[in-house]
Amino acid sequence: MTAGAETTTTAPARREIGVTELILRDAHQSLMATRMALEDMVDACADIDAAGYWSVECWGGATYDACIRFLNEDPWERLRTFRELMPNSRLQMLLRGQNLLGYRHYEDGVVDRFVEKSAENGMDVYRVFDALNDVRNVRHAIAAVRRVDKHAQGTICYTESPLHTVEGYVQMARDLMDLGCDSLCIKDMAALLKPQPAYDIVKAIKDDLGQDVRIHVHCHATTGVTLVSLMKAIEAGADVVDTAISSISLGPGHNPTESLVEMLDGTPYTTDLDGERLLRIKDHFATVRPRYTQFMSAITGVETEIFKSQIPGGMISNMESQLRQQGAGDRLKEVLEEVPRVRAVAGYPPLVTPSSQIVGTQAVFNVLMGPYKVLTAEFADLMLGYYGATLGERDPEIVEAARAQTKKEPIDVRPADLLQPEWDRLGAEANDLEGADGSDEDVLTYAMFPGVAPVFFAKRPEGPRNVGLDPAELAAGDQSEPAGKGPVKGPINYAVTLDGAEHHVTVERA
Amino acid sequence: MTAGAETTTTAPARREIGVTELILRDAHQSLMATRMALEDMVDACADIDAAGYWSVECWGGATYDACIRFLNEDPWERLRTFRELMPNSRLQMLLRGQNLLGYRHYEDGVVDRFVEKSAENGMDVYRVFDALNDVRNVRHAIAAVRRVDKHAQGTICYTESPLHTVEGYVQMARDLMDLGCDSLCIKDMAALLKPQPAYDIVKAIKDDLGQDVRIHVHCHATTGVTLVSLMKAIEAGADVVDTAISSISLGPGHNPTESLVEMLDGTPYTTDLDGERLLRIKDHFATVRPRYTQFMSAITGVETEIFKSQIPGGMISNMESQLRQQGAGDRLKEVLEEVPRVRAVAGYPPLVTPSSQIVGTQAVFNVLMGPYKVLTAEFADLMLGYYGATLGERDPEIVEAARAQTKKEPIDVRPADLLQPEWDRLGAEANDLEGADGSDEDVLTYAMFPGVAPVFFAKRPEGPRNVGLDPAELAAGDQSEPAGKGPVKGPINYAVTLDGAEHHVTVERA
Repeated sequence: MTAGAETTTTAPARREIGVTELILRDAHQSLMATRMALEDMVDACADIDAAGYWSVECWGGATYDACIRFLNEDPWERLRTFRELMPNSRLQMLLRGQNLLGYRHYEDGVVDRFVEKSAENGMDVYRVFDALNDVRNVRHAIAAVRRVDKHAQGTICYTESPLHTVEGYVQMARDLMDLGCDSLCIKDMAALLKPQPAYDIVKAIKDDLGQDVRIHVHCHATTGVTLVSLMKAIEAGADVVDTAISSISLGPGHNPTESLVEMLDGTPYTTDLDGERLLRIKDHFATVRPRYTQFMSAITGVETEIFKSQIPGGMISNMESQLRQQGAGDRLKEVLEEVPRVRAVAGYPPLVTPSSQIVGTQAVFNVLMGPYKVLTAEFADLMLGYYGATLGERDPEIVEAARAQTKKEPIDVRPADLLQPEWDRLGAEANDLEGADGSDEDVLTYAMFPGVAPVFFAKRPEGPRNVGLDPAELAAGDQSEPAGKGPVKGPINYAVTLDGAEHHVTVERA
Repeated sequence: MTAGAETTTTAPARREIGVTELILRDAHQSLMATRMALEDMVDACADIDAAGYWSVECWGGATYDACIRFLNEDPWERLRTFRELMPNSRLQMLLRGQNLLGYRHYEDGVVDRFVEKSAENGMDVYRVFDALNDVRNVRHAIAAVRRVDKHAQGTICYTESPLHTVEGYVQMARDLMDLGCDSLCIKDMAALLKPQPAYDIVKAIKDDLGQDVRIHVHCHATTGVTLVSLMKAIEAGADVVDTAISSISLGPGHNPTESLVEMLDGTPYTTDLDGERLLRIKDHFATVRPRYTQFMSAITGVETEIFKSQIPGGMISNMESQLRQQGAGDRLKEVLEEVPRVRAVAGYPPLVTPSSQIVGTQAVFNVLMGPYKVLTAEFADLMLGYYGATLGERDPEIVEAARAQTKKEPIDVRPADLLQPEWDRLGAEANDLEGADGSDEDVLTYAMFPGVAPVFFAKRPEGPRNVGLDPAELAAGDQSEPAGKGPVKGPINYAVTLDGAEHHVTVERA
């Protein structure tokens, strides 16, 4: 519209908002169980590289895990491929602080080695978070990133509780910047960040730490409100926001990149992304998407009830399956109501890998067996401080139960301080495995996924396996059509038992 | 979050934002081809009535049409049922100005009768629009609504063009308010209204006409940006916004009601809707939705390309089917590029029923047969002024072609001024039909849908027909699961009679 002369907002020179594209990591992790194969990404890389993104997120715990567990792909090879195909882009990863890409705390030497090797293989930007927001657990990783001269992004996991305040988040921002972070991220993994808190937190951090503190905002889309939150965060001064190309967006995924671009049209903000490139990226992944129909999230619309449970969308289906296995598929509602109580007992941790699984599973146990009759080993560790500190006090009675059950003492030091150097042992064990190539990268794979790595190393020579549908199959088949609409396209084989005798029958439309 | 003390926005007393719930009209029109039967709505009415909505949209051209064409339901009976089940709610309808719920201009006496009868049957709020934004075409309907003492809402169809400006919209708002409207609506039927123009237009109208001019904002969700637009419209002073309950929302439908509620949390605005009622409404329609899978829109994500063509989402599939029938299924892209050119030739009308169909079909003709080699009768009428005035000048060369082809002269008066009283003739014709009951309501049905009414009147005694899946069928079947996900659940037993002999056959996938 030609409204220039009529605009009632005083528009300064337009401020450029950076965009981190999530399609290569979190988008397919959230929407298709992290199953997308590298071969379905490579053809889009030239457009992604040239579209004008601030960074391209392309690596993290779940992608690494899925590569070796499901896709027989070497995650390091994937990283090197991205580096080669996107020479002009900042490659970005999500790092679980002292947990690296695994589920336990690693000794500092392993953290150093991981950061060195990933930087060497092409990583530029490290978004480092701790599931409990315990800054001690990200300190070493951030120092390691600084040492290799890469971009260290300190992360605040956003959550809500009676104890979480804007001032508390500002304090955490201060603590992270004191570690020498290049930028901050507000990470909203469950789409809980509403527009007003988004505005308030970004504004308060900028007011307190200075306008030149770079703030990134990462939101999921599950509750339907977070594109508005990105708008308010931008108005408050956010520098970079995370989105995913529209064809793999929304639901438990993220806000669409193209919608962000259009949203800013006419405002004092702009993305300067290349619309033609975005369209090509969109079309590419629209073509890829049907290959992974079988892995797609069942949630496609919005879910606002999660404001109560705070359970990330992807986890609810896990819980349902846990409950069904126990013959209690009808008790999901009770579990969702139990989750906030377990969270309170545990001192109000954010719910993100691994705390979401730990709290969620304990809630399932509480509902099935009675409150805290049995603690999971992980929940006991959480209560005893072995994952780090929580903002709130942990319920002393349950801490005592955890001590009694595990015979372990509560700790209040940084968990990794209790660890002994382990690199040499890990290396020796890894190099003994069939198919291990003796590289530090293989040692890291083994260190983080000791159960899966042996199988992966042995099978690696077979090469990548695409678990999506074959494009030819897809062209012939009806996978993208809802049942009842898609006609039977080809012959189907049946085992038919007729008056007690089994026959093999092939049926096709005559 | 307990951020009260930290809030950096100065919050005045919270302003209550009204909400119009669209589930009973536009939501299922946009997402399931208007096929929802009354019986699938009645159980939600008590909750809708008590949830605290400003109004409940429940009637319009497409619902009326679908009632008599597909559902064998009397639309007047549907209206009376809503009136009875929602005694505390404002019932709202969408009225196509002088076209009423049909596709031609009616003589003023018919307009009067329609408004009187609908008011008598329970309608409260009339949202009156003209597809060309020609205020002369809504004048009589608005006067009729005022005469029966109901709420007359004047509508601005939002579109973009080199001629459309904020000042132009303000002028139209002035013209509508001069007719005595109780409120204004900014109607964004194709999700083109971006946040900044939403803010600018609402603010400019309020600044010009006064803060107490009530402004409603209606947006579709297709492009993914319009919840942000509602936020900015509210910040600019909008009084009421339209949303649909989340289980039948998004895509070419609307923003989810629950997301709107959550979006305003902590802001100076509130909806005061009852969350428990919303949850029950959501759950009800989540159960209903799978019945209509076969009618569901293929678009579920966002489409930002429509910013260029401005074609409402629902129309693109119509065009595709027109093209396929002509063996030109691969030429959609050309047609979408032709649409803006046709719109320019026609003086930049908004694209909404019926102008969207008229412009869209001419674009198809232009692509298939060459530009303006053949004009559709409707496009010729549009060029000659028989639908009213457009903002821009219509291309004189094509006006001349329209005159030559149709032997009709261009007009510049209000089209209905050329019509003769027709109520008596319509009444006589209607009452001659088998099954007509002699009521004014039946005459109106015949007047607006002369082709369908005779069949409907004859079959009406058979009672409503639900074209959705039977709940029992649904419980047994796998209609809600995508193909490839929903396996045949187990062996199926058949009794098969083959050459006269009955066999018992068990079949399962081999």
